[in-house]
Amino acid sequence: MQVRGKGFYSLTPVNEALENLLSGLRVIGEEEVLLEEALGRVLAHDVVAERDNPPFDRAAMDGFAVRGENTFGASQANPIYFRIIGEVLTGQSFNGEVREFEAVRITTGAPLPRGADAVVMLEHVNELGGEIEVIKAVPPGKNVSLRGEDYKKGEVLLKRGRVLNPQEIAILASLGLRRVKVFRRPRVGIISTGDEIKEPGEDLKEGQVYDTNSFALAALCSATGAETSRLGVVRDEYKAMKHAIEAGLNYDVLLISGATSVGKRDVVPEIVRELGEVVVHGVAMRPGEPTGFGYIGDTLVFMLPGYPVASIVAFETFVRPALQVMQGLKPAMPYPAIKARLRRKIPSELGRRDFVRVRVERSEEGFEVEPIRTSGSGIVSSLVRADGFVIVPENTEGIEKGEVVEVGLFRSLDE
Amino acid sequence: MQVRGKGFYSLTPVNEALENLLSGLRVIGEEEVLLEEALGRVLAHDVVAERDNPPFDRAAMDGFAVRGENTFGASQANPIYFRIIGEVLTGQSFNGEVREFEAVRITTGAPLPRGADAVVMLEHVNELGGEIEVIKAVPPGKNVSLRGEDYKKGEVLLKRGRVLNPQEIAILASLGLRRVKVFRRPRVGIISTGDEIKEPGEDLKEGQVYDTNSFALAALCSATGAETSRLGVVRDEYKAMKHAIEAGLNYDVLLISGATSVGKRDVVPEIVRELGEVVVHGVAMRPGEPTGFGYIGDTLVFMLPGYPVASIVAFETFVRPALQVMQGLKPAMPYPAIKARLRRKIPSELGRRDFVRVRVERSEEGFEVEPIRTSGSGIVSSLVRADGFVIVPENTEGIEKGEVVEVGLFRSLDE
Repeated sequence: MQVRGKGFYSLTPVNEALENLLSGLRVIGEEEVLLEEALGRVLAHDVVAERDNPPFDRAAMDGFAVRGENTFGASQANPIYFRIIGEVLTGQSFNGEVREFEAVRITTGAPLPRGADAVVMLEHVNELGGEIEVIKAVPPGKNVSLRGEDYKKGEVLLKRGRVLNPQEIAILASLGLRRVKVFRRPRVGIISTGDEIKEPGEDLKEGQVYDTNSFALAALCSATGAETSRLGVVRDEYKAMKHAIEAGLNYDVLLISGATSVGKRDVVPEIVRELGEVVVHGVAMRPGEPTGFGYIGDTLVFMLPGYPVASIVAFETFVRPALQVMQGLKPAMPYPAIKARLRRKIPSELGRRDFVRVRVERSEEGFEVEPIRTSGSGIVSSLVRADGFVIVPENTEGIEKGEVVEVGLFRSLDE
Repeated sequence: MQVRGKGFYSLTPVNEALENLLSGLRVIGEEEVLLEEALGRVLAHDVVAERDNPPFDRAAMDGFAVRGENTFGASQANPIYFRIIGEVLTGQSFNGEVREFEAVRITTGAPLPRGADAVVMLEHVNELGGEIEVIKAVPPGKNVSLRGEDYKKGEVLLKRGRVLNPQEIAILASLGLRRVKVFRRPRVGIISTGDEIKEPGEDLKEGQVYDTNSFALAALCSATGAETSRLGVVRDEYKAMKHAIEAGLNYDVLLISGATSVGKRDVVPEIVRELGEVVVHGVAMRPGEPTGFGYIGDTLVFMLPGYPVASIVAFETFVRPALQVMQGLKPAMPYPAIKARLRRKIPSELGRRDFVRVRVERSEEGFEVEPIRTSGSGIVSSLVRADGFVIVPENTEGIEKGEVVEVGLFRSLDE
């Protein structure tokens, strides 16, 4: 299919393109990382307890370990007396047995001495030289953490695919694990294209603009857990571009923004087709129509629009879910959703998915949403003026004023 | 106030402790970072546009630059003819002027030649040697991005305090900024205490358990944007602990978990009082009652409970908001909230705030929530069995079965 200079023959619906993309993807590998580096990673195997936790019955309070039934009937008026036969501190163990009406001084976390089955709190004890008065009864088991009460040997504590948040890190530490096997992060190479594109920090000549896409895409990739390298700005020229793409094939994923549409200088799709396979090129969405993807060897190559806003929308729609699946995550948008009433009609076209940047304001009845008027997807400032976005689905010609829509929020409305 | 071994004289309400804490905090400093490292950071100054964007009128489509009014009346049946006087490619500029019925071939992003005010798309043009037939009229301004249409020189694009998400990174890049000034991340040192606590990976003797707190706290700090160092496990012993605390005073924040309550071996509050000031010790919350904080010199010292669950709850309640304020963020929990119906009564005490771990299940009417039965805050597994938590506020003795509560979710319910 030769489309350069002639417009797209046909556009693939977003869902069809996405299913096509994700059905070809799986986790890309495993690696072992230190527990300190495991935050946010995805577990590559089930974690089974190798021992009970706690590994022994232990005191849950500072106090005295006793036989609980010996305290029955104890009160302020009728204290019961116990002989102190020793002490066990946290981290130690007691070499003896607690018999009837004997007590061992114990600190929180210390192993319960043999024979004892409860701990009387310090507050309910008066110490009198070698013995104590207990002024409150404690049933057996009171103020004691039983061995295995947290988890038992052999128990599956975390399943493969679990995201390692701080809670999961805590349980892995409690198991004594120093390292953990997780899915590998996708390595992403990012190429910006365009003869007019310069690196931030350089001087601009007339007709030139700064590279924004590779920075925005790198940030989006990092926020999705990928390892990212900016591979620089490449000219819209066949040889230079082919060389850059070939040099990027050691990455799991290659993002190329610009030179991906159907103009004369849009050399990328042709090169991808030559070196590998273009699976989808041209998607029924706005912005982002020139989006496509394919494979060169094992490298998944995304062709993203050159306009910054379109490029970000294409990332959100296709690249993010792909990166998530490749590291064992469920595809999901990171933007919290709220409901809001539309202040102005959003026109759209049947068969096309539109991503509309919006401002959100609080009103007396809840939230109201105002589409941002812009003349195109080159308007970077619309992204930071917007509080979020509304998706107009394919099966409608737009959304009427007054309707309630779902808004994905770029940031907290309190900021 | 000497409380060791005697229980807390009084407990400070959570809100009072938190206001006390936050009112003493401000951003801790600024630093300049590379744009690639700015994701998630907080802007320390207003960002003002130093030039217009786009910096010149430019083509928004591939086509021919013309005077729009010359195309009026053009149609398939009545094409209008234009003489091609040259070409301007993206990144270049055109050294001449477009006069009546003249056209310059132009690519998307290239500067509009002087004299032209519109671009006819390739699709609406037939090329005939040195001239073109235009078959559709374009009004002036059509397919053109005007200079300054994105933003104008002098415009405040991002305000101090703005969180730098990918969209903000994009606009900073478009401004040509290579570095950006952001608030410094708090540096946090983390000490675990306990004679029974061993590093994961070591062998356990009887009576010993693995350090979970410092790993969980380090993960929580990282997820909050702090720079974190685990300073190891310290014995519950006055001299060792004092030495460890003194060695940790080069951090902005010191987290000490364990040895912070009122037992005989709870040496931390006394040492903090000796070296500096204890502001709050003992908070009316469960779990987490032994929580406290104070200052030694400029270092904010948190005394956190030794039990893992209590330590995490104390982090969420006090440490997270403090770390957020110190780097210029609004205090906020990272857990999305849902409403759910309570399946079982949650008892509580008037005047105390309870954090109750819960499981969430979908029912026909929405979500239902089941408190997890545990015997205490040493039960690490309860954190990974829980889907989230319910807060029982101070002004109630509990929440009745059937009531609708707000649940903070630890993770997506789809996982």
